Amino acid sequence: MSTPASNDRVINFGAGPSALPLPVLEQSQEGLLNFEHTGIGIAEISHRSPEFTAFLAQVEANIRAQLAVPPTHAILFTQGGGSAQFAAVVLNMLARYKLLHPERAGADTPLDYVVTGSWSKKAAEEARRLTLGGHARVHVAADARAHSADGKTFDTIPPRSAYTFSADPALVYYCENETVDGVEFSHEEGAPTAFPFDLLNPSGEPKLLPLVADYSSSFMCRPIPRLAEHAVIYAGAQKNIGPAGVTVLIVRQDCLVDVDAAARLGALPVPTMFSWKTLADSKSLYNTPSVLSIYVTGLVLERMKALGGPQYYEELNRKKALKVYAAVNDGQEKGVFKKKVKDGSESWMNVVFEVLGEGAEKRFLDGAKERGMAGLKGHRSVGGIRISLYNAITEEQADKIVEYMNWFVAEELKNKQ
Amino acid sequence: MSTPASNDRVINFGAGPSALPLPVLEQSQEGLLNFEHTGIGIAEISHRSPEFTAFLAQVEANIRAQLAVPPTHAILFTQGGGSAQFAAVVLNMLARYKLLHPERAGADTPLDYVVTGSWSKKAAEEARRLTLGGHARVHVAADARAHSADGKTFDTIPPRSAYTFSADPALVYYCENETVDGVEFSHEEGAPTAFPFDLLNPSGEPKLLPLVADYSSSFMCRPIPRLAEHAVIYAGAQKNIGPAGVTVLIVRQDCLVDVDAAARLGALPVPTMFSWKTLADSKSLYNTPSVLSIYVTGLVLERMKALGGPQYYEELNRKKALKVYAAVNDGQEKGVFKKKVKDGSESWMNVVFEVLGEGAEKRFLDGAKERGMAGLKGHRSVGGIRISLYNAITEEQADKIVEYMNWFVAEELKNKQ
Repeated sequence: MSTPASNDRVINFGAGPSALPLPVLEQSQEGLLNFEHTGIGIAEISHRSPEFTAFLAQVEANIRAQLAVPPTHAILFTQGGGSAQFAAVVLNMLARYKLLHPERAGADTPLDYVVTGSWSKKAAEEARRLTLGGHARVHVAADARAHSADGKTFDTIPPRSAYTFSADPALVYYCENETVDGVEFSHEEGAPTAFPFDLLNPSGEPKLLPLVADYSSSFMCRPIPRLAEHAVIYAGAQKNIGPAGVTVLIVRQDCLVDVDAAARLGALPVPTMFSWKTLADSKSLYNTPSVLSIYVTGLVLERMKALGGPQYYEELNRKKALKVYAAVNDGQEKGVFKKKVKDGSESWMNVVFEVLGEGAEKRFLDGAKERGMAGLKGHRSVGGIRISLYNAITEEQADKIVEYMNWFVAEELKNKQ
Repeated sequence: MSTPASNDRVINFGAGPSALPLPVLEQSQEGLLNFEHTGIGIAEISHRSPEFTAFLAQVEANIRAQLAVPPTHAILFTQGGGSAQFAAVVLNMLARYKLLHPERAGADTPLDYVVTGSWSKKAAEEARRLTLGGHARVHVAADARAHSADGKTFDTIPPRSAYTFSADPALVYYCENETVDGVEFSHEEGAPTAFPFDLLNPSGEPKLLPLVADYSSSFMCRPIPRLAEHAVIYAGAQKNIGPAGVTVLIVRQDCLVDVDAAARLGALPVPTMFSWKTLADSKSLYNTPSVLSIYVTGLVLERMKALGGPQYYEELNRKKALKVYAAVNDGQEKGVFKKKVKDGSESWMNVVFEVLGEGAEKRFLDGAKERGMAGLKGHRSVGGIRISLYNAITEEQADKIVEYMNWFVAEELKNKQ
């Protein structure tokens, strides 16, 4: 099925909400009127109907299978995006810590944050806000800005020597991929820009680490390294796997704690909607979820499975990123582009660079628009260009922007002469 | 446009998520592929694009105009449904109170709850949970169960003599319509089951009352009485105006408070996502909202406007409710149905009753299903039948269930003879 509207679609390189596969959108059109032959549209059906609960169970199973999530971890769905989890992470992990160490004071409760970009910085700020009454102490375990040329830009993963983890923190937080800054941890085991799992647990003995990862902008773009060693991994759907309105949580069982018991011991109270245990006990149906967004997400995941899962996307995304970075580097050598992120710290998902010269950025954006390519403006806080290469961007679409970039570089050089 | 799928649709009397107007769903199908000629689907477009921010502003303007919301009140959109607001209401109103009365202790900070059904009961429980550390004292200003026949059922609005409001509470909370129990405040000025605004403010002098109303299941089904006297009115969209995933807030400006300043004075810290002021300062775009759900909601509101707004729906909903209650009452007189709610407290939106006799409830549901009518099972906590008559249910559809109810009653009587 292809409606007239589908012919007018532009290529959407936006950073999120972002492109979704056309076949999924076409399927969603049918579901809007009639969900799985119920005679009721997906936006109208009860979240407690057998049809929807079965669908939701399948979404969970699909994530579990594709990411090989072990039975030690629950998979949960909620609302509010990463920003809600900035708070939920602090509140749930502090409750867990209080139950483990009822006697420990706030000053002895470190929250370790690895700050590598705008989003992890924001997460650390939320932790500071929530604990300003003295319920914990935020410790920046590494700040990437200290390792940039000007001391204030997020353009690199910190060197291994930079990390100073606390002895027994309530949480250790990192953001795997920074959407705004285009900085990402390497997935290459042993790479200097990989996340330093070994430094967190030097003895190497099995230990329930309180490791929290924000995977919002790279979730399911490839397998997650050392997933089982995480306490919590969370991601908003609106980059690789669906529309905005769904947050996926992968939570280790020991982090599903009785937040009221902790509050009675003096921990910060936790809004019920933020309690991971409540969410788990209700199979993500404590209250009405964003049914429509979950539906589209489920269709995307089915399609991912059919194509070969995260392994398939890892290969595809590697190819796309290599091609686009090659074009950025080529433009840089020719003095037209300037890559913003240091070698080894580049994101596969968000390629950020500057277009050099008076009015050149506007020329770049206008030319792209004329050719049916949109969503290329960098985040308002950093400017420049950002090309987001989420799962729904095909290799052909990546080729199209690369071709345009090469043409643009040649054109700029021509005009300079 | 009418797709084949639309012919198979059943009549959905579900309590939420619930029926949406067919023309809106058909429009949404187009928007999924191409939102307002952008070439980008609505689930894919940036929430900061000029097209979407203009759309969102229009949604706000539409609610403001239709409900005559005065400029003293902001209209905000968030996620998490009513359950998230159960907590947000407590946290924001306690922050406001702390800024007004920095010296007052938790024991001197009453939170007044009017409990008329399952949802207001849950809201009061959330307030108790969050303040168990002594930040406030929950006071039940009236409990409807005390006025039921068995002392434990929610089947009536309390009599006026039942209310005991605190002198200077941080909030006064009520739920206008109880979806589970089918109990609703009367909108008739001076009716014994109307909300007792006058008792809240006996002097009648202008005063910024901390009055909070949950309008989740009756929002925009008719005008809101004394809207301007409320501090906060909130509603999940998924009953009358859209899909799940959007919560609408109408907040008086003096309740948009600096929650961090309050926390520094000792108030409970507020997750940023729950801060109404943050939401207002960012025009509901602090982070990515549920764009797709907002879109469908916007289309429903446009349709409402075209048809005549809440005044139109008030007439329509009155007619529908009168017809269905007449059928319930008739069935009750004949010993087949039993109305669950006392006279004067009946909800226009959720008509709850029992079908009397061995196996009769199942016969009723099976017969309805055969005739293409679904969503009629009562909430799992109370059982029985619930017919929800939200805005999208047409008079013809209400006639159809009435016709069936009448037929069913006659049939039951025949079989009894």
